[in-house]
Amino acid sequence: MPTSPSNDQAIGVFDSGIGGLTVAASLRRLLPHENILYIGDTARVPYGGKSRETVERYSIEIGNLLLAGGAKMIVVACNTASALGVPRMKEVFEVPVVGVVVPGAKAAVDSTKNKTIGVIGTRATIASGAYEKAILALEPGATIHSAPCPLLVPLIEEGLIEDSVTDQMLRRYLDPLLSQGIDTLVLGCTHYPLLKNAIARIAGPTVSLVDSAENCALSVGHLLRESHLATPKKDNGQLEVTLTDSAEGFLRTAARALKLPITKVSLQNSPERPKN
Amino acid sequence: MPTSPSNDQAIGVFDSGIGGLTVAASLRRLLPHENILYIGDTARVPYGGKSRETVERYSIEIGNLLLAGGAKMIVVACNTASALGVPRMKEVFEVPVVGVVVPGAKAAVDSTKNKTIGVIGTRATIASGAYEKAILALEPGATIHSAPCPLLVPLIEEGLIEDSVTDQMLRRYLDPLLSQGIDTLVLGCTHYPLLKNAIARIAGPTVSLVDSAENCALSVGHLLRESHLATPKKDNGQLEVTLTDSAEGFLRTAARALKLPITKVSLQNSPERPKN
Repeated sequence: MPTSPSNDQAIGVFDSGIGGLTVAASLRRLLPHENILYIGDTARVPYGGKSRETVERYSIEIGNLLLAGGAKMIVVACNTASALGVPRMKEVFEVPVVGVVVPGAKAAVDSTKNKTIGVIGTRATIASGAYEKAILALEPGATIHSAPCPLLVPLIEEGLIEDSVTDQMLRRYLDPLLSQGIDTLVLGCTHYPLLKNAIARIAGPTVSLVDSAENCALSVGHLLRESHLATPKKDNGQLEVTLTDSAEGFLRTAARALKLPITKVSLQNSPERPKN
Repeated sequence: MPTSPSNDQAIGVFDSGIGGLTVAASLRRLLPHENILYIGDTARVPYGGKSRETVERYSIEIGNLLLAGGAKMIVVACNTASALGVPRMKEVFEVPVVGVVVPGAKAAVDSTKNKTIGVIGTRATIASGAYEKAILALEPGATIHSAPCPLLVPLIEEGLIEDSVTDQMLRRYLDPLLSQGIDTLVLGCTHYPLLKNAIARIAGPTVSLVDSAENCALSVGHLLRESHLATPKKDNGQLEVTLTDSAEGFLRTAARALKLPITKVSLQNSPERPKN
């Protein structure tokens, strides 16, 4: 059954919800000819507060759906699933699996001058210590200050992008990191690039922001070339979005904010639990 | 297979997460001798933004788990599942099914003097129009103003119970209802009683708050007596909590806030999708 993927297949992108469209938008800009098959597990969103075991199980299930849809590679466009699910996905799947954590960690190490790096993300991502580990593997002398920001995703999904309440929460979350003298801040959740302006305003000009979506897309491009999986096509690629539950409102908001044309949207039930 | 439930079985209580513990706490006060089997579907929480079809499916699945655990009746301690799932559950299950919507609507009609009633809840609950329908069935002359408050559950789950950010969001959500002259406000989400003090402060003394948890428990007591299912036992009942994913932090917070002793906590995977 496992045959090698071929270069005319689509890139499979997976997120717990719609936030991963920031990664799809970066892929579209960087690799305009690639077809993208995106699955958002909106029936079980959010993953950010759930356990490793549950996130691992969901990740394998959605990975299988992407392969069934003909994906040549799996991009885990969700920091929580990258932090908790990617190690197991790499064992299970034959196609390349790319998460957002390692590319983000690499970009942070490239950016920092004082080796003092901040990381923000969901509760599960921060608790996993995944960014910490990935950064220290590249730069053992780094000091990392991290903070879970559990309210940012709901605030973003409610469209409070430029809003005094969001600014207040950002200040509460960021002040302890800023007072430690970080010069680089990893936006360790694919929703957060939508708050980039507000975060930049509060963090100030001395702090560089690392956008995990952008760096993940760069890493995918590199891997496609390296593994001879880049599409030979020259026309514009398509973006197909499948959701496990309807989330039309936020889907429209995100697509508009990201200026991201979507070819087709469909619905599919969450997969059954695999027998094990 | 379907045998009539007997009075020494437990009351089954179901919520998408932990918020339904407010109902369990009301049941404990009102019916101290009853055993309670509580299942929180924390692996798929929250239901509040999900579609009718998905909430219906999840409700039947968790109802089956409660019956497998020996429940004599199913209490749907979740407004979203009550609004979207209870009609189908009543068709499927042989045991009595009680939601929070009808008891809350009845209490609102009993409370209002000017027949102008406010309802707050999740996006799914408000969009369903379930409270509106239930209130108008009892009082066709009522005027109902409703507002989805999607950020309140995340704020409560983060423990921001007495907090300036929560107060600001409450003002945004409630001001349009208050300006319509409501004299009664239905807290149409089982999390909201945890914000009762803040809501009362902002709504002011002329607005009566209807706590759907309390009214649901009253309705359960009535139904148990009517259907001869009240326990004959005289010792203190037990509360067993099963979660589909770990949520220890908020579970402890809620149990402390509600002064609710929990006999046993266990974990169980979300059920598989029924073959249909």
